[in-house]
Amino acid sequence: MRGDKLYGNGAIAHGGGPTAVLNASLAGVCGAWAQYREHGSLFGAIFGVQGILNDDFVDLTEAAQERMDASAQASGSVIGSSRLALAGQDYDTILEVFRKREIHRFFYTGGNGSMETALQLSRRARDRGYELQVIGIPKTIDNDLAVTDHTPGYPSAARFFIHAARDIGFDNRALPSPICILEVLGRNTGWIAAATSLARFHDDDAPHLIYFPERRLSLDRIAADVERVYRRIGRVVMVVCEGQLDDRGMPFGADVDRADSAVHRLASNLGHTLAQELTRKLGIRARAEKPGLLGRSCAPLASQVDRREARECGRAAVEAALAGVNGKMVTLHRAPTGPYRCEFNLTDLENVARIERQLPDEWISAEADNVAGDFHKYLAPLVESIAFFPETFNRASRGSAGTR
Amino acid sequence: MRGDKLYGNGAIAHGGGPTAVLNASLAGVCGAWAQYREHGSLFGAIFGVQGILNDDFVDLTEAAQERMDASAQASGSVIGSSRLALAGQDYDTILEVFRKREIHRFFYTGGNGSMETALQLSRRARDRGYELQVIGIPKTIDNDLAVTDHTPGYPSAARFFIHAARDIGFDNRALPSPICILEVLGRNTGWIAAATSLARFHDDDAPHLIYFPERRLSLDRIAADVERVYRRIGRVVMVVCEGQLDDRGMPFGADVDRADSAVHRLASNLGHTLAQELTRKLGIRARAEKPGLLGRSCAPLASQVDRREARECGRAAVEAALAGVNGKMVTLHRAPTGPYRCEFNLTDLENVARIERQLPDEWISAEADNVAGDFHKYLAPLVESIAFFPETFNRASRGSAGTR
Repeated sequence: MRGDKLYGNGAIAHGGGPTAVLNASLAGVCGAWAQYREHGSLFGAIFGVQGILNDDFVDLTEAAQERMDASAQASGSVIGSSRLALAGQDYDTILEVFRKREIHRFFYTGGNGSMETALQLSRRARDRGYELQVIGIPKTIDNDLAVTDHTPGYPSAARFFIHAARDIGFDNRALPSPICILEVLGRNTGWIAAATSLARFHDDDAPHLIYFPERRLSLDRIAADVERVYRRIGRVVMVVCEGQLDDRGMPFGADVDRADSAVHRLASNLGHTLAQELTRKLGIRARAEKPGLLGRSCAPLASQVDRREARECGRAAVEAALAGVNGKMVTLHRAPTGPYRCEFNLTDLENVARIERQLPDEWISAEADNVAGDFHKYLAPLVESIAFFPETFNRASRGSAGTR
Repeated sequence: MRGDKLYGNGAIAHGGGPTAVLNASLAGVCGAWAQYREHGSLFGAIFGVQGILNDDFVDLTEAAQERMDASAQASGSVIGSSRLALAGQDYDTILEVFRKREIHRFFYTGGNGSMETALQLSRRARDRGYELQVIGIPKTIDNDLAVTDHTPGYPSAARFFIHAARDIGFDNRALPSPICILEVLGRNTGWIAAATSLARFHDDDAPHLIYFPERRLSLDRIAADVERVYRRIGRVVMVVCEGQLDDRGMPFGADVDRADSAVHRLASNLGHTLAQELTRKLGIRARAEKPGLLGRSCAPLASQVDRREARECGRAAVEAALAGVNGKMVTLHRAPTGPYRCEFNLTDLENVARIERQLPDEWISAEADNVAGDFHKYLAPLVESIAFFPETFNRASRGSAGTR
């Protein structure tokens, strides 16, 4: 450590899928590191842990703040990320690379899987007697990290899908095309699906049905729901997560006798499969819409609150490292009263690693087809204003809509 | 005609799919009609020609301008549209309804199919001796109407897909997920596919390949293109229209021995089918993204130029009617020099009905995998500014991107 207590290089890596505001967290780390620049360099891992294992880094110490600030408005990641699962010996390889580069502070952005990686690395460093501070920075559109009020990336994905549900709802209402399935991101939790409920303004605005992976449902049950809404208002926009499973715990349309790979292939085309099943079952044309990865990458629809908080999380992580913290993740804590405001705190990696926070029971309706409780109060300040429009003239024309 | 030459009610109806700015054209018609209000009422057909046949109208004469202006910001249609194909006797039914309601001016928004309907209705009215002025208002995201410089709806769809290509490009670059197929709207013409070329700013920015329905291509040819780009830069974002056909004139993956219905079903899932074929053929994982109907309905990404022009087309149609015009469609004409500016003119319905304007040969590259000529000069002023961002740090890391 060259005698200087503060000496030591830093590294930042991303884990998992990018978000619309991941570059803002990187800009936050770079900006905060600037004040510490004379004590050490900051390396960015190219393509996450893959970059570390390959000793493939970019030196961000001197990265121009203007460039980082401009990149903070872009989605994706300017250094890349990775989904690579680490084997046991990979942790030692990482520590070798860190030792060679004198990296003693490691910032890792990600969800509960990445925080498990961070935790394991922190433990391995301790076991090997290598001085390393590991700080997690929350990042996942899934919003399924424990302890923190929400995770950077989620508000922007939520804001995208609110607009998608609103505008696909308008499109659905403009033509006699009765059933539309909107497939949203979210494999195991219904946080994004729930967000689409904020697209409603007038009675009978889309979405009319919202399902949650937290509640498995049979195709018969969904078909009955869709038919009931259709009988009442002549059209249906339903929201379903990519990870929704049926009452057997299987993807819709999956053949339970087939191999896992076939099941997964079908699952990746959930909306389309479900549309075919509903068309067949009800005799009413159903179509599926899947905005897909645009939901996590559409920069112009990102939440500015989210972008600001993502940046602050990066800054908080560097400040924690400078204060000597190790083995913790940055968390957001909402002020219990007054206008929306979040403070930044820290929690042990053990409290978030591999722990999946589902949508709470009190925010799922008893019928499991809508949100409930004060979920809107929770989400509204995170997604900023959503424009709403006057009621359409054609809403009462069920006869025209439904019968021709 | 009650002795007053100007007396006569008006009706407006929409034909075909909605756009992000269709309500602006309606607001333009309503606003212009207001000055004529004392001479007659303006009726809006609920769900297009279906509403006319069912005598299902809303009286828009007194519709508050504020409400119409607010609705003009929304996508979809506040009165609804229709894809119903008219039979010969339907035209007489329409004239009966018009006679009963004393409708002598008819405004019809749509593409080349709707202009054919307008033309037939105009002829039928003449044959029956019923005094009717028919004025077409251009409306199609496909931009495939003849005579007019472009069609309202297209600039907004183009602007959406430019952003989609840019941000899916960023997402693709952030992870080692090599091949991404972006399926865009457009069944017979490549206007929207071509637009995505404006997403490029730096060398090797997405999209790397753009195909056009004007040029049929074999799967082998596409696979060879994709492999070539992949070998060079380690990733590929390719753009393909929903209506792209293979060199046999069939949808990709279609079994030529199957019935038409099966072929169409497959065609509706083009990106997914193509991704499976490419994965199988090249042994590299390909995924498909299909933003779908959001491409024609995403209000926050609409072009303000488009919205303003859509409104002006509505206004121009009413002014033409008041000037005694019949059997014509409003057209946009770009000033040949100076800053972008369009004038509004008229053309005979015969010049646009059922005529499909393809992307000109000079705007398709010789290899049929990119735009050419001054297409950008044509499109840029219609889609307004697109934000671009600094180059990423990870772009040169082909090894990391491609090999793990």
